Amino acid sequence: MRYLVTGGAGFIGSTLVDRLLALGHDVTVFDNLSTGHERFLADSRRSPKCVVVPGDLLDGESLQRAIAGADFVFHLAANADVRFGLEHPRRDLEQNTIGTFNVLDAMRTSGVRRIAFASTGSVYGEATIVPTPEDAPFPIQTSLYAASKLAGESLIQAYCHGFGFQAHIFRFVSILGERYSHGHVFDFYRSLSRDPATLRVLGDGHQRKSYLYVQDCIDAMLCAIENAREPVNVFNLGTDEYCEVNDSIGWITGHLGLRPALAYTGGDRGWIGDNPFIFLDTAKIRSLGWKPKLSIREGIIATVDYLRANAWLLDDRA
Amino acid sequence: MRYLVTGGAGFIGSTLVDRLLALGHDVTVFDNLSTGHERFLADSRRSPKCVVVPGDLLDGESLQRAIAGADFVFHLAANADVRFGLEHPRRDLEQNTIGTFNVLDAMRTSGVRRIAFASTGSVYGEATIVPTPEDAPFPIQTSLYAASKLAGESLIQAYCHGFGFQAHIFRFVSILGERYSHGHVFDFYRSLSRDPATLRVLGDGHQRKSYLYVQDCIDAMLCAIENAREPVNVFNLGTDEYCEVNDSIGWITGHLGLRPALAYTGGDRGWIGDNPFIFLDTAKIRSLGWKPKLSIREGIIATVDYLRANAWLLDDRA
Repeated sequence: MRYLVTGGAGFIGSTLVDRLLALGHDVTVFDNLSTGHERFLADSRRSPKCVVVPGDLLDGESLQRAIAGADFVFHLAANADVRFGLEHPRRDLEQNTIGTFNVLDAMRTSGVRRIAFASTGSVYGEATIVPTPEDAPFPIQTSLYAASKLAGESLIQAYCHGFGFQAHIFRFVSILGERYSHGHVFDFYRSLSRDPATLRVLGDGHQRKSYLYVQDCIDAMLCAIENAREPVNVFNLGTDEYCEVNDSIGWITGHLGLRPALAYTGGDRGWIGDNPFIFLDTAKIRSLGWKPKLSIREGIIATVDYLRANAWLLDDRA
Repeated sequence: MRYLVTGGAGFIGSTLVDRLLALGHDVTVFDNLSTGHERFLADSRRSPKCVVVPGDLLDGESLQRAIAGADFVFHLAANADVRFGLEHPRRDLEQNTIGTFNVLDAMRTSGVRRIAFASTGSVYGEATIVPTPEDAPFPIQTSLYAASKLAGESLIQAYCHGFGFQAHIFRFVSILGERYSHGHVFDFYRSLSRDPATLRVLGDGHQRKSYLYVQDCIDAMLCAIENAREPVNVFNLGTDEYCEVNDSIGWITGHLGLRPALAYTGGDRGWIGDNPFIFLDTAKIRSLGWKPKLSIREGIIATVDYLRANAWLLDDRA
């Protein structure tokens, strides 16, 4: 079985690639290295079962080459820069919506019909039901990122209905763990490594967030693909707990032995489109027997330990 | 007040343009004439208050020119060829999703912040609640057309949240009436005008459909824009009745005095992605005081009378 992993040099993608190779599968990695890292592929490149195809989702020819011969596509490549969507509105459209269309249409013309997709709990907007189940009331989108991901979900569903595809769509909370290189724990750690005495916090720190450890996320995806057999299978992925941004700051600084002065920017959200509370009902994926092994706190500690051991990652982005 | 109407040479668009001009407004028509008709603009072109800008949604320069000076955008231009989406999957993406993005981003750069959008009841997929309210459970998409329209809705909502736009999003049932030139009443009438003795019917004829008369549709949109003041306002538009395809055939043939032999293709839907039952809960728009003036039967009769008086429309498309 050959898996294509788009975004296979990214945080979640490269972790999935390592896992698939460890399970004995053939893997094709497709990545434009815009946010992925060659270093994340160091192990997998040593495997004769791994092929790396550099390329962008908007480059149809590279994509077609990557998809040829695949049996299953993990479509994880995306613009994951949620916060700055308003500064470049076209990027989410191109990378997340048009990119997903290109993957689907290359699959169709190549006869590949199974896809797993990394979506986001942000598609629930400001949910009226919390914890939010997969069949929550039809939401209103509050960010270009979520809008572009919902568009991707919708395209995939239409391909399932129209072209006989099977899809597993995963609505993630934020994912943490080894190779995490984007998001607020990263920002906090980097800031503290440069100035341990002060920490700027977007919002009032009371935003409630849910996180999932990357290996738990991969366990969940593989469990769903194995066990959920509908044409379209939508799953929330997250832990059954949440924390405040202030909690995560406490765990990070406590683990590092720091006591920075906290400077809050104020308001109940970090930025326009930030959701003050994302907490997903994960009963559906749990009903398949999956459960996370790490708590949010343990996931954050593992992340901090990883960042501490991989200082190169901090310097990589300005 | 200057309104821009994209798709302003189309069935609904040109009817709206006439209405807005009659109300004394200035109107810019933007249309690529792919499914619209110059003849539909014959009256409005005589008004000094009407400007026609030919162009496609994918042509940013024309679009920017059309939007300049507008106060409000009715975004009705779309690929409305629901049935053949699977034969050209990219068309819905381009015309409906990317096209809507282009409208939004041209509005943003021009400082125009009010938009009304023609979406579709198809975004509810195979609804579990019927009549289906606006906050029905988060649906699974079943056609590329609906997926592309939901993507458009989502983009608009994200622009409202991120850039301070105000939007009125209308999820239509099928619209009928004068200038109707696309859909199954049209197909039935044209087929009967060529061969009054037999009529081929896609599916088993028991598909239940809901229709709304075009002037009622325009009444509803203008009522909502006047009275609904949230940043994002989503409304179902339809009548509170439905009929079977067989009912509409009976009304059409009865009105024409024909008794054709009916040849059913069979199955519970006309084509892949056809929804055997779209029936929307319209309590929300009715709560603003709107109600339709014509029943489904009256709307179908008005449509047949129009087509009978405008044979040129039948010959226009092969």
